[in-house]
Amino acid sequence: MSLLVQKYGGSSLKNADRIRSVADRVAAEARSRPLVVVVSAMGDTTDMLVDLARRLSRRPEQREIDMLLSTGEQVSASLLVMALHERGCPAISLAGWQAGIRTDSRFSTARITDVNVDRIRHELAQGRTVIVTGFQGVGGDTGWEEVTTLGRGGSDATAVALAASLDSCECEIYTDVSGIYTADPRIVPDARKLDFITHEEILELAQYGAQVMMPRSVELAQIWNVTVHVRSSYTPDAGTRIGGNMEYGHRVAGIAHQTGVAKVTFVGLADRPKVAQTIFEALTRWNVHADMIVQNIGHHGRTDLSVTVPEDDRESALAASEDVRALVDAQQVTVKGGMAKVSVVGAGLSSSMEYASTMFGCLGDLGINIDMISTSGIRITCVIEGGRAQEAVRELHAAFHLDTGGGAWQDSA
Amino acid sequence: MSLLVQKYGGSSLKNADRIRSVADRVAAEARSRPLVVVVSAMGDTTDMLVDLARRLSRRPEQREIDMLLSTGEQVSASLLVMALHERGCPAISLAGWQAGIRTDSRFSTARITDVNVDRIRHELAQGRTVIVTGFQGVGGDTGWEEVTTLGRGGSDATAVALAASLDSCECEIYTDVSGIYTADPRIVPDARKLDFITHEEILELAQYGAQVMMPRSVELAQIWNVTVHVRSSYTPDAGTRIGGNMEYGHRVAGIAHQTGVAKVTFVGLADRPKVAQTIFEALTRWNVHADMIVQNIGHHGRTDLSVTVPEDDRESALAASEDVRALVDAQQVTVKGGMAKVSVVGAGLSSSMEYASTMFGCLGDLGINIDMISTSGIRITCVIEGGRAQEAVRELHAAFHLDTGGGAWQDSA
Repeated sequence: MSLLVQKYGGSSLKNADRIRSVADRVAAEARSRPLVVVVSAMGDTTDMLVDLARRLSRRPEQREIDMLLSTGEQVSASLLVMALHERGCPAISLAGWQAGIRTDSRFSTARITDVNVDRIRHELAQGRTVIVTGFQGVGGDTGWEEVTTLGRGGSDATAVALAASLDSCECEIYTDVSGIYTADPRIVPDARKLDFITHEEILELAQYGAQVMMPRSVELAQIWNVTVHVRSSYTPDAGTRIGGNMEYGHRVAGIAHQTGVAKVTFVGLADRPKVAQTIFEALTRWNVHADMIVQNIGHHGRTDLSVTVPEDDRESALAASEDVRALVDAQQVTVKGGMAKVSVVGAGLSSSMEYASTMFGCLGDLGINIDMISTSGIRITCVIEGGRAQEAVRELHAAFHLDTGGGAWQDSA
Repeated sequence: MSLLVQKYGGSSLKNADRIRSVADRVAAEARSRPLVVVVSAMGDTTDMLVDLARRLSRRPEQREIDMLLSTGEQVSASLLVMALHERGCPAISLAGWQAGIRTDSRFSTARITDVNVDRIRHELAQGRTVIVTGFQGVGGDTGWEEVTTLGRGGSDATAVALAASLDSCECEIYTDVSGIYTADPRIVPDARKLDFITHEEILELAQYGAQVMMPRSVELAQIWNVTVHVRSSYTPDAGTRIGGNMEYGHRVAGIAHQTGVAKVTFVGLADRPKVAQTIFEALTRWNVHADMIVQNIGHHGRTDLSVTVPEDDRESALAASEDVRALVDAQQVTVKGGMAKVSVVGAGLSSSMEYASTMFGCLGDLGINIDMISTSGIRITCVIEGGRAQEAVRELHAAFHLDTGGGAWQDSA
């Protein structure tokens, strides 16, 4: 059978027992095919190391943070190999620098630039399963080799990059959830696990509040055309495959939601060039992450511009707007907290206005006021009162018949 | 001032507080001279990792043990750098493979073959203090770069190798003892700290029971002519310098002792070639570490051969002798446990028989029977009853006037 890349997250490797059960799984798979396994650091190792660093320095240098944190994956990789040997499975661990994972020189947020798979191929040819430390590589523009880490979701990125570089047909990402659901199962009890979802859909779901894979790794998978299989390390059940074929997309794939949102509105702005730019430069300066941006049509040389920001960024957003209020000639700046975003995501949304009508109608029937609307080709997002978000998600899930798969064109790859 | 190499052991770095106090010391020294610091893993990190490994594998592969354990020094190196940055001291951490420490391919007991100091010199030239992970290097004969560790005392070896490669005049080894004493201070209350001792003397002391530096690092220091300064990380006081100049040797440097010794005697052996060889091959096969070896003069074609072994190896030694008893035609094999070795060590011993007389006389006056005697040019060792070892050490310390420095030609460098 063809080569497979698997990735196990920290919760799947949090103690000796969990490592043993991952080893059982890996050893079984390795009997039938060449296998490369990417591992994260064990459980809360990374948090523990970060805590130690904070006790020694108020603002540790990123280069040294990378040296520190990269040890976590090396520990789990070598331990997993020992457990595999105990099961009679030939295996070898490789640190990022040994596995040929080259990155740029941005410590703590490095990007993979290139993978030299010579060593991995050599070890596979010896009949070994290769365990690679996730989340890290070797880079640096000083002429000297530096350990770099890839930032949040880095181990997923490692797995996707290896799958692409090794021409693997698939990359399995093991987590403690069993796949991607049509909505958060804690809120919608009849949410269904999706067998398949497109890269585009998962990106929209993730960016609008679904707790799934980091968008970055999905983007990599999309660029490199890798199918990612998100599944649970606790059960043998298949999870959700994330793939590139729009033919397999859904009319509606799922409902995402996000609470803790504040809406900042610049009222009666001068309707002239560079106004939006000035506002966004100020928000960036104040480290405010504005995601939805809506500008209404202008009247009499004035316009309104609204952005959503995390509730936690509210004060910084206000300070940023004070900075530029005079510059952009805003009549007023209003901030409204306690809001939520609810989004309907699906490849089918691009083909019909019907979905928008269904969404607005559903919220209207519930007497929920829509504060802002924003759309992409495959997503419609409404900003509503936060206290009504769960109710809205449940009703939208039903309105699009997601409990019975009614919203899907085809649900399996 | 010229370059200095310092090494801090695990107990000096066991928690954030201890790392801070090492950082204070390093930052102060770095103000006046170029500095390279070798670090061990924090406190009991290594034990903790070994324990995890044992829970996953009955007999973990050495290569993976090295991958696992080498992370410990990387953690302490990066944490120390963070603490140094917090003190305004420019610094950078380098893992063994980055620091150019090449070894042979014997995992877990690798030997340093070469140090490429280009990167260290580059960082020093940038005004940075360089923190190097001890105990590890990069080696392997497969054409691929492998992480190797140096075995017990490995961080000391790293420090000595770096001092030699960087033409450093001195290498400071920080431990939790304040130096080398004329005898174990827990047994001899008026034992004196030595200001200076020769490589040869410390080797004899260490091999005959003094708990000081690992002999291996002293051998390296001797070969590469590096002066090693063993001192405490808890006090500013000077410790003991270990140097190469016999001119500064002592008449008697100190008294070493070791309990838990068993004596194995092959009685009435055939007095012919290859008998000793046959016996030692058997002991090696059974993993018995025999240190003192004494063969008495033969009579009528028969001779006796005695060796000392650790009490723990007693059963294996008996098994080994059963293996070869017929082969070497021994009339009998006796084993006597509960013994001790007491040794007098000093460069002066080579020049006069007087020291041997003093030693035997002292033990005789105490009514202590001498079971075996063995000597080197600068050491006399007697095997005696274990229960009387402490008394013997105290009386020998007095007999050689070590409390008042009476045994020394010259005691400071």
